[in-house]
Amino acid sequence: MVGASTNDGAGRKKPGYDLDSLLRTAVKVFHERGYDGTSMEDLAKRLGITKSAIYHHVSSKQELLRLSVDRALDALFAVLDEPRSREGEPMDRLHHVVRRSVEVLIDELPFVTLLLRVRGNSKVERQALARRREFDHLVGELVAEAERAGSLRSDLDPALTSRLLFGMVNSVIEWYRPRQGLSKDEIAETVTRIAFDGMRRRQ
Amino acid sequence: MVGASTNDGAGRKKPGYDLDSLLRTAVKVFHERGYDGTSMEDLAKRLGITKSAIYHHVSSKQELLRLSVDRALDALFAVLDEPRSREGEPMDRLHHVVRRSVEVLIDELPFVTLLLRVRGNSKVERQALARRREFDHLVGELVAEAERAGSLRSDLDPALTSRLLFGMVNSVIEWYRPRQGLSKDEIAETVTRIAFDGMRRRQ
Repeated sequence: MVGASTNDGAGRKKPGYDLDSLLRTAVKVFHERGYDGTSMEDLAKRLGITKSAIYHHVSSKQELLRLSVDRALDALFAVLDEPRSREGEPMDRLHHVVRRSVEVLIDELPFVTLLLRVRGNSKVERQALARRREFDHLVGELVAEAERAGSLRSDLDPALTSRLLFGMVNSVIEWYRPRQGLSKDEIAETVTRIAFDGMRRRQ
Repeated sequence: MVGASTNDGAGRKKPGYDLDSLLRTAVKVFHERGYDGTSMEDLAKRLGITKSAIYHHVSSKQELLRLSVDRALDALFAVLDEPRSREGEPMDRLHHVVRRSVEVLIDELPFVTLLLRVRGNSKVERQALARRREFDHLVGELVAEAERAGSLRSDLDPALTSRLLFGMVNSVIEWYRPRQGLSKDEIAETVTRIAFDGMRRRQ
């Protein structure tokens, strides 16, 4: 074990590890080996730095998890604060929230994927689940507002609709891979087309 | 370790373990501890029977996994063989397939949940993934047929639509719990309403 080095064996300069690159690599390793199956030692090896170089940025593996899921959650909550999510007709605001959520999911794919797999096995995970429920609650409120404004179909239950809507949004993590041909814009657009107006061609 | 018993300590008769109850319990334990984290010993303890009583039904843990995911897959493929999935307009057939898939998902919840979490780490898992892809392919074909028949909106890509459609269907496993108030019928109906005609009230 040598100290943190900025050169690999072949003498090429390695990129410096800032917190962002640290989180990206940590989340990748969590996905491969599972969070519980990953040690700080594993992370240090993968990063090619010492454990103490990691502890320069974070105090524990739990903190890496917290920063990673918070990154996804902060991006999703930021969507709710955008002017188009706050001003105008409820159905238009909901449309904006859904569209932007798909974009966030794609922009922050590994972090949102980690968030959606959290099961509540630790305090950090339970806090993340609580924030997720808060987000779902706010979206549910928006669907309910759209119902009260008369713009949701009257044969739909707002709570169930809200769940299915984000079920479709979140399912994108199951198959989306960057550079596979589908653009973020096309996916976000298709989700909103189906969810708001359905896939059936109107007569 | 005692032999297989039909009495628990309190002298109450235990239900006999047929293959169906064995699979139900095995899948429950897989969900709690993870498939890799579950031993035949764990299963025997939970069932209150000996390992040899389990081996009376199956030859290995892999076989328990195979029988469990096949149960979900067989039920889904059976939907595609129903007359209303095979006869009539493509869009109506697709509507039937989506509705019935939601019903199967709810009827066979633990088995479908297991299937949807399979990642391809063994031959059994890879075979399950291959059958899942075949199912997805057949649904994708049906969406493409609906497009050729002119009943899919022309601004939707059939392959992407098919993925998002089943993304919404499959998302039900994330939150559905029996006896929570929503009926199977209500959920299946809501999924098809949103997917086919959208949640926006028509002007």
